[in-house]
Amino acid sequence: MSKIKVFAPGTVANLVCGFDILGLALNEPSDIMEVSLLDEPKVIIHNRDEYNLPTDPEKNVAGVVFLSIMEKIGGNTGFEVTIEKHIKPGSGIGSSAASAAGAAVAANHLLGNIFSTDEVIQFAMNGEKLASGVKHADNIAPCILGGVSLIRSIHPLDVTSIPCPELFVTVIHPQIEVRTSDARQILRQQVQLKDAIRQWGNIAGLVAGFCKNDLDLIGRSLEDVIIEPVRSILIPGFDEVKANCKAAGALGGGISGSGPSIFMLSRDEAAAKKVEAEMKKVYDKIGIAYHTYVTTVNKNGVRIEALK
Amino acid sequence: MSKIKVFAPGTVANLVCGFDILGLALNEPSDIMEVSLLDEPKVIIHNRDEYNLPTDPEKNVAGVVFLSIMEKIGGNTGFEVTIEKHIKPGSGIGSSAASAAGAAVAANHLLGNIFSTDEVIQFAMNGEKLASGVKHADNIAPCILGGVSLIRSIHPLDVTSIPCPELFVTVIHPQIEVRTSDARQILRQQVQLKDAIRQWGNIAGLVAGFCKNDLDLIGRSLEDVIIEPVRSILIPGFDEVKANCKAAGALGGGISGSGPSIFMLSRDEAAAKKVEAEMKKVYDKIGIAYHTYVTTVNKNGVRIEALK
Repeated sequence: MSKIKVFAPGTVANLVCGFDILGLALNEPSDIMEVSLLDEPKVIIHNRDEYNLPTDPEKNVAGVVFLSIMEKIGGNTGFEVTIEKHIKPGSGIGSSAASAAGAAVAANHLLGNIFSTDEVIQFAMNGEKLASGVKHADNIAPCILGGVSLIRSIHPLDVTSIPCPELFVTVIHPQIEVRTSDARQILRQQVQLKDAIRQWGNIAGLVAGFCKNDLDLIGRSLEDVIIEPVRSILIPGFDEVKANCKAAGALGGGISGSGPSIFMLSRDEAAAKKVEAEMKKVYDKIGIAYHTYVTTVNKNGVRIEALK
Repeated sequence: MSKIKVFAPGTVANLVCGFDILGLALNEPSDIMEVSLLDEPKVIIHNRDEYNLPTDPEKNVAGVVFLSIMEKIGGNTGFEVTIEKHIKPGSGIGSSAASAAGAAVAANHLLGNIFSTDEVIQFAMNGEKLASGVKHADNIAPCILGGVSLIRSIHPLDVTSIPCPELFVTVIHPQIEVRTSDARQILRQQVQLKDAIRQWGNIAGLVAGFCKNDLDLIGRSLEDVIIEPVRSILIPGFDEVKANCKAAGALGGGISGSGPSIFMLSRDEAAAKKVEAEMKKVYDKIGIAYHTYVTTVNKNGVRIEALK
């Protein structure tokens, strides 16, 4: 049986004003999975990392994705996977999506690419359902497709790739816990029409900025008047990080997914590194441990290498 | 003194899901204005149409735009204008915007283009303030710039042109009155977050569709779950027109501005004409008089010709 090595990138969902509809893939960090077919209908999971995630397929994000694919194809096919996570669970940069998307793309590859990209995304969404209780695709889609993805609709699934300039991305993951389900629950279910209008002006501006390679427009559009004001209270230092990073030259940024990671987009590496220094300063002062990444937009999504 | 002839096109604001932020210019109908400078600080208005609009500059949309420009430049400059409206006031295809934008562009031209495009848009917005009580730019901007305009923000003004495919536009103006102020007042000031998310998915999809020349995506994104369900009750036959036009091949469409006109986008002229026939059928049956237009996107905005 052939074995493949899969690289599933981290992702930034929402992109500030695009709550639930936009996401972007990162070149770092990236999970690594080794996957092979089994000739019996079971899923075997090995962990090769420090996170002690469940190896029961029903309770594992990659596991439920494999199971959903096996349910679809029937017969005596199963999967064995070794997961080496580099995207820390709960970081807000698409850790569960990387496991889910990596599993779905890997399985489809091993099965001879019998499923369309939309189908692969839908299988992967079963992993998000397990992780957060909600089937969403704003990490899954960019993880699979690379670049910036627009998820116009989930039912029916309508995913589109948005052209994306060469941007640098700085991410800081403060080592605190923000549960996605909590971050969802604190949102108000009603919003002011005037705020919604401002938000959709920003979303339209952000998409236009990506398409037209207009970095200033991207920067002006990275504004969220609905979600960020509520969610950012869960992230100590958020306002200071944001203000200092923009002063240091970031185009803009905000909460990555539901947090606690914060991301900033910059037009060049020098700016992205200055931004990293500003982020570190704030959390050094507050006294919260962190990881940072200075990376670029991953244009290709999940990558597969053949193994012997 | 030199005299110029100005063609100011009709416009479709909102574009279904882009309430207050998107607009598109039409090649038909178009107002015609003849404008010249005066060497005294007054505004003289002549009407050359059937609409009997006020000629008191303080009460005339073009008049207040000229006055706002005169206030800015000071001195002994004034304007004389003859207005020949072809865009019926109250039609919902940017009649007041054409007068306001035509006046602002004409004045700037006669003054040697001393103002930036943003300034010209801002002068023209004074006309919209008079017409509807609100300074908005979703008709003004496309009227001046042509094509599709995104108004990301009014304060501060942030206007961007969006690339636009070659599209056909069918418009029907049923001869009923929907006052812009009424159409604003019936809107709910609170919206469900889930509806807002669906709306901004559609807006992002529409902008991406325009930028990527993806007509199917444009069609799928022409959906409004917030404004149209409320406003369309003011327009008899709306649901039937929309359903029949889509069945006849329209990509999609909806209320033009605050109505009562309805517009539909199509990929070719044959479809646009079928759509026109469907629109007529509905209003013939209901027994409401109408005008229709089958036209294309105006890519250039207000056009100026020199007169002797």
